[in-house]
Amino acid sequence: MKKDVGTRYTKEESNALRSALAGRQLVIKEQKLPVIVMVEGWSASGKGSAISSTIRLMDPRFFKVYNMDKITEEEWRRPFLYRYAVRMPGQGQVAFFDGSYLDEAVKDHLAGLTDKKEYENTLASIRDFERSMTDNGYLIIKVFLNVDRKTQKKRLKTLQESKNTAWRVVDEDLWQNEEYDLFARTYETAREATETPDCPWHVIEVSNEKDVEGDLLSIITHAIDSRLAEIAEKGRDRKLVKNPFALKKIKPLAKMKLEDKTIPEEEYRKELERLQKKLSKLHYKLYRKKIPMIIAYEGWDAAGKGGNIKRVVSALDCRGYEVFPIASPSVEEKSRHFLWRFYNRLPKTGHIAIFDRTWYGRVMVERLEGYCTENDWQRAYNEINEFERDLTDWGAILVKFWVQIDKDTQLERFTERQNTPEKQWKITDEDWRNREKWDLYENAINEMLQKTNTEFAPWTILESNDKHYARIKALKVIIDAIEAKLDEKK
Amino acid sequence: MKKDVGTRYTKEESNALRSALAGRQLVIKEQKLPVIVMVEGWSASGKGSAISSTIRLMDPRFFKVYNMDKITEEEWRRPFLYRYAVRMPGQGQVAFFDGSYLDEAVKDHLAGLTDKKEYENTLASIRDFERSMTDNGYLIIKVFLNVDRKTQKKRLKTLQESKNTAWRVVDEDLWQNEEYDLFARTYETAREATETPDCPWHVIEVSNEKDVEGDLLSIITHAIDSRLAEIAEKGRDRKLVKNPFALKKIKPLAKMKLEDKTIPEEEYRKELERLQKKLSKLHYKLYRKKIPMIIAYEGWDAAGKGGNIKRVVSALDCRGYEVFPIASPSVEEKSRHFLWRFYNRLPKTGHIAIFDRTWYGRVMVERLEGYCTENDWQRAYNEINEFERDLTDWGAILVKFWVQIDKDTQLERFTERQNTPEKQWKITDEDWRNREKWDLYENAINEMLQKTNTEFAPWTILESNDKHYARIKALKVIIDAIEAKLDEKK
Repeated sequence: MKKDVGTRYTKEESNALRSALAGRQLVIKEQKLPVIVMVEGWSASGKGSAISSTIRLMDPRFFKVYNMDKITEEEWRRPFLYRYAVRMPGQGQVAFFDGSYLDEAVKDHLAGLTDKKEYENTLASIRDFERSMTDNGYLIIKVFLNVDRKTQKKRLKTLQESKNTAWRVVDEDLWQNEEYDLFARTYETAREATETPDCPWHVIEVSNEKDVEGDLLSIITHAIDSRLAEIAEKGRDRKLVKNPFALKKIKPLAKMKLEDKTIPEEEYRKELERLQKKLSKLHYKLYRKKIPMIIAYEGWDAAGKGGNIKRVVSALDCRGYEVFPIASPSVEEKSRHFLWRFYNRLPKTGHIAIFDRTWYGRVMVERLEGYCTENDWQRAYNEINEFERDLTDWGAILVKFWVQIDKDTQLERFTERQNTPEKQWKITDEDWRNREKWDLYENAINEMLQKTNTEFAPWTILESNDKHYARIKALKVIIDAIEAKLDEKK
Repeated sequence: MKKDVGTRYTKEESNALRSALAGRQLVIKEQKLPVIVMVEGWSASGKGSAISSTIRLMDPRFFKVYNMDKITEEEWRRPFLYRYAVRMPGQGQVAFFDGSYLDEAVKDHLAGLTDKKEYENTLASIRDFERSMTDNGYLIIKVFLNVDRKTQKKRLKTLQESKNTAWRVVDEDLWQNEEYDLFARTYETAREATETPDCPWHVIEVSNEKDVEGDLLSIITHAIDSRLAEIAEKGRDRKLVKNPFALKKIKPLAKMKLEDKTIPEEEYRKELERLQKKLSKLHYKLYRKKIPMIIAYEGWDAAGKGGNIKRVVSALDCRGYEVFPIASPSVEEKSRHFLWRFYNRLPKTGHIAIFDRTWYGRVMVERLEGYCTENDWQRAYNEINEFERDLTDWGAILVKFWVQIDKDTQLERFTERQNTPEKQWKITDEDWRNREKWDLYENAINEMLQKTNTEFAPWTILESNDKHYARIKALKVIIDAIEAKLDEKK
């Protein structure tokens, strides 16, 4: 029952709309629908008070409101979408963003923090992010509160005049009013660039607060209903997006030679020491130049990931890296987009994050054990490529290792672990069960390697029948990647 | 095999010590022992490199290193111990702190950020924190790297001369060297104030790095062994600390009159509107004066906590509060001190955190369902009192509500929920099971109310047979608490 501009809602109408929304909370919980409501718009357009009155009858245990205006230093040192991604709600929850990434992208650009190309990339990655979120079951409701120049000026003045609210008016707000036309044009093109059928923009013309909350309430309720109707009708499967990224050919595992990939003990010791010294120096340069780095390890059980990682980190300053062993997701993690727990573990600029198993679990174990639907893992290749593109666009060095051994070598190592008391904790029945599915996994891995071997985030195979060989190769690849990035920056 | 000052460890000895420690990691994992290693000491005493070489052979998946020197703005806006508490490791994990709260407390004091009394309170709360952590199964190993004035000066100079390390020397370090004697005295008294049998200080005289890492390694390994031996011998139960806090008498639940605690509909509507308006204004004052507030709700199932909270928050600016529904702890939470998940949810200064169920679960459901040992919940009263004292010392307004109804009223509400479709999700078999244990719970609650009814964090009973009455009372209590704090500040 959205009304025309300027028409007022009666107190009764607003209350009816409020309790209607409160009722939807139960439906959302039942349907496990996670909802994000982004209230964007001009400063002093009444975003906050619109949200406040919208939630008045909602159950506060099942929604959160985030004021996204202020960016902390920790957030500045993460990718653009980080602070929004880490706040995504779980199933059945609602997150309100008071101000969001459209506003941030526009302000960054007009303030000269991003050039035209960076700005367009940001808008593109926002579009992809929203599609990926929607495909993973999220409802994103985007509202823009539009206020004309005169009204905004008047409102800012009113705010400044009361000592209870004066602190809320910052220079940026005044600047926005001075440059009103420029902002108006930019907001409009930004909305167009992020307009999609699944995540359309709802522009509310602000004439007085009543209209805002009334319209906001009916927009949210309507969006929830139509999404649930759509799911009921078409189910949760989503259309697959054709992969838009250039892919480099990569050999299937079976074709990878392992026998000749060895290194003599003596040479190994020498090389290890030399390369670790070198990496250690480079680590300080990364730190000083504030370049973030992400090293992703995937590989067969007992392929030697742990030992490989150990040789890398022992060359690093312990204050500049973190290692994340990735096990099965927690309840909170299961109830969100599968990339959420990795957004949560992204390094700060100048730091290194090492993942022992990664987001590729989606197209391996989750695929083969049926922890997600076929449609989910089919989509995941592209969702992962977009995620990695955002990381490299951010300026991160991204190294992806597949640690490869053959089936016999795995058997040897399993047996050895079984028979060595202090290694037994490393081997579980699950490892044996997975081993029985070797061929299924090999198929999935080949498909994964091929479909995610992008120009910006290519795979490196670490031939690890000889662990020493794999460790030396890993160090070399990491060193080369860092040096390449440092050259770029020169 | 800790050596005398100045004696060198051979390369072989150091390696032997390193692999000994690496071996201990497995024992720690088996024994589920969480370990914190605090490496404190003078700037340029080699804390970082000592840690780096100490961990060289450790499995990076089971330890983390935190550089605690830099404090983020988010951390500044939390209690002193917050940034250490949120980083506590889980069972079987090791956390290394490069610099810790002793250094922070000393620097804050010498920089004039804390007066003598505040400084002594900080040291006292550190002592209590360490005892509480130890009692809850943690091993805290505290090492202080001592370096004489000349050596420090030389080292700072060396650091400044290389462009790889110059950035690491800040004014504070130079100030420390100038004021060496003052710092030396203060560090010493601070160590004395935080010296306990369970968490003794290990001072390592730094003459050259070899000695530091060698000594550090043997200190850690030895500490782990003796703690495990102690557990094997005496078990995990700990001595109960006699409650040191003044307690206000409080009536047992059975003696609380409920019948006459009612309010007429008409008066309720008026009061609700009046009080919400008032609270709304006060919320902005809290925000501007950066006063944090914590509102804790406990009470019987169906006592009306949810509806009560809703009436409170609908008066608040949605950007300035968060509601935390507390369910059973996650795996990560179970593996840490029971207060960890509440440290994680503390509000920033100027914000309000509302807890729907709280840390008191330890002495109610966890006690009665046997989720913790008797020794655990017996200790918890005091651990909770200390936790709340730290919150109020920090400057937080802390309001604790027990929402009280009688057994018949609960039955009515259970039955009504059972029979109202849109309320059925609120009622589970567990609620009915808990109801059968009403008397056991009533006992536990009476003990809890009495043992945690401190001067600084007293309980308020919300008589809620008439929900309206309870809501009005809650609003009044919250408003009074805020006004009292604002008067203090005048």
